[in-house]
Amino acid sequence: MNYKYNIALDAMGGDNAPKKVVEGLRIFLRENKETSFTLFGKKKEIEECLQKCDLSKNQSIFIEDCEKIITNEMSVRDSIKLGKESSMWRSIESVKNKKCDIIISSGNTGALLVISKLLLKTIDGVDKPPLAGLWPNKKNLSIVLDLGANVECNEKNFVQFSKIGSELYSVLFDKQKPNVGLLNIGSEEIKGNETLKNTHSSLNQTNNNFIYTGYIEGNDITKGDVDVIVTDGFTGNVALKTAEGTANYITSEIKNSFSNSLLSKISYLISYPVFSKIKKKLDPRNYNGAIFLGLTSPVIKSHGGADGYAFYNSIKLSSKILRGNLIDKIKNNFVNGKK
Amino acid sequence: MNYKYNIALDAMGGDNAPKKVVEGLRIFLRENKETSFTLFGKKKEIEECLQKCDLSKNQSIFIEDCEKIITNEMSVRDSIKLGKESSMWRSIESVKNKKCDIIISSGNTGALLVISKLLLKTIDGVDKPPLAGLWPNKKNLSIVLDLGANVECNEKNFVQFSKIGSELYSVLFDKQKPNVGLLNIGSEEIKGNETLKNTHSSLNQTNNNFIYTGYIEGNDITKGDVDVIVTDGFTGNVALKTAEGTANYITSEIKNSFSNSLLSKISYLISYPVFSKIKKKLDPRNYNGAIFLGLTSPVIKSHGGADGYAFYNSIKLSSKILRGNLIDKIKNNFVNGKK
Repeated sequence: MNYKYNIALDAMGGDNAPKKVVEGLRIFLRENKETSFTLFGKKKEIEECLQKCDLSKNQSIFIEDCEKIITNEMSVRDSIKLGKESSMWRSIESVKNKKCDIIISSGNTGALLVISKLLLKTIDGVDKPPLAGLWPNKKNLSIVLDLGANVECNEKNFVQFSKIGSELYSVLFDKQKPNVGLLNIGSEEIKGNETLKNTHSSLNQTNNNFIYTGYIEGNDITKGDVDVIVTDGFTGNVALKTAEGTANYITSEIKNSFSNSLLSKISYLISYPVFSKIKKKLDPRNYNGAIFLGLTSPVIKSHGGADGYAFYNSIKLSSKILRGNLIDKIKNNFVNGKK
Repeated sequence: MNYKYNIALDAMGGDNAPKKVVEGLRIFLRENKETSFTLFGKKKEIEECLQKCDLSKNQSIFIEDCEKIITNEMSVRDSIKLGKESSMWRSIESVKNKKCDIIISSGNTGALLVISKLLLKTIDGVDKPPLAGLWPNKKNLSIVLDLGANVECNEKNFVQFSKIGSELYSVLFDKQKPNVGLLNIGSEEIKGNETLKNTHSSLNQTNNNFIYTGYIEGNDITKGDVDVIVTDGFTGNVALKTAEGTANYITSEIKNSFSNSLLSKISYLISYPVFSKIKKKLDPRNYNGAIFLGLTSPVIKSHGGADGYAFYNSIKLSSKILRGNLIDKIKNNFVNGKK
């Protein structure tokens, strides 16, 4: 059978690999038959997991045996030294060689970004490939980029991020001209630096695949009025981690309060069905997968701590990106310049 | 009667002024008799509020009639033009003239920072006065600075923020050598910019009023292991607003879930006592008041939307700062240099 897409999976990255990778795959295969998968990693371990998941005889799964693993603790330098023998390197290489169309890894972020840049070409017109992520808001989901690939960004980078983020949003949420906001800080007089001011005026003049709506502040991200939020990798990463920390703090306060007396425990039991719905809705596993964009192939970074369900969501995201032909759309955008 | 301290209140700043200012004052006066207050603003309006709060005959309250008000919508330029006649300007001036010891305003942040810098001297050795704020965490409260006064900061600024933040933490929480962390981003290879790397090595060598514990990430802020978190005003402001937005998003999701069916409404009623405790604990009014430090007098910025209870917390904070002799401690720290 011919498969429409082939997804490369670094089966050894992050916690509980390859188990979670195979479990994620099992969920995905229930709903999708048009994709094949090449799993890069320790063959024996992968085969054991496949057997446990009743996937041993699945025709859409291939294994490429790799003995070496890039761990989370490794420096990028050491990861590169380990090089061609590692599951991460080889899965990225399979995309370079056109054997696969997209690669997903839960492994070492630094190594993934650097090796991807090393092996895959940058799309003409893109200076710094950004890392984009899905961010839940009161209405649906936004895209925030850059989440940490580029600490320092200039006006040109921000305009490029706006285009790339908008193509991604269009593909994922089927909206022709998404809104783009530039992340900045409050009060008029102390507003932003020169780079942001220049970007603001550039974006106002850019006639492209998005509608620029101006500056937004940190508290606007979750309001859901802006589809694509553009910022540098330093600010984006701090914002993302701060949001995670805040969510964790609030939920732990709620948990503590509902468990510190018999009466509160009973209240919790009664409210359990509601809490269960809330938990499901706010579950960060739903948005698992940061998208490294601007290279000739997309690279998906699953959370290191992702479980099977979270990994499944990364596969689903990858599949959407392939079906939406995202990379070609980004290429066209940059080739055509201003539309 | 002689009062130990005199607090200047810009009675006209922010929403619902001067009502909330007087209401906050009423709560504070129940527990404190050693402080007098000078309220700057429209005399008639203030007197009406005082009457409603049974404070008309209170001997510790003085009024300075000011006809003009700096609104939130005004640019800093226009605020300065309005100048000496405005309640904000005159309340800051009263601190400059040593008639008051500290000033609190819920008004226009940009105007407050700029007029304060214009009227009050900077402490010798401080290059850029930072805006510090209390940040709740799993154990207690941390201090984060800068929250938005200085968009661009260098290594020297960061070291100064560490000293200033630590003096503030010592005064508020009675801890001799607080821990200081430098806000940065994740993965080793993409970690921070040159300024942060230089600051990191400077702080490691600084023997001062704090213990430097290294880099921390956004999600560490709420863990509560670090007392003072140092960052630039841009990142600090984005982090703060993002945390506010996240908290708002989560609580609104919870509210929605508990009100979308009869059963969930009943669950809510049963759990109400627990929710009420959680609400009280997470109430942002508890931490109301950003502290503008590094000038020869402290300036407190209350949230524009603060109500009486929130404003009361700003007064309480101001009182702690005065009793702890914070400004002299900061001055001494900078005069003595390395201890």
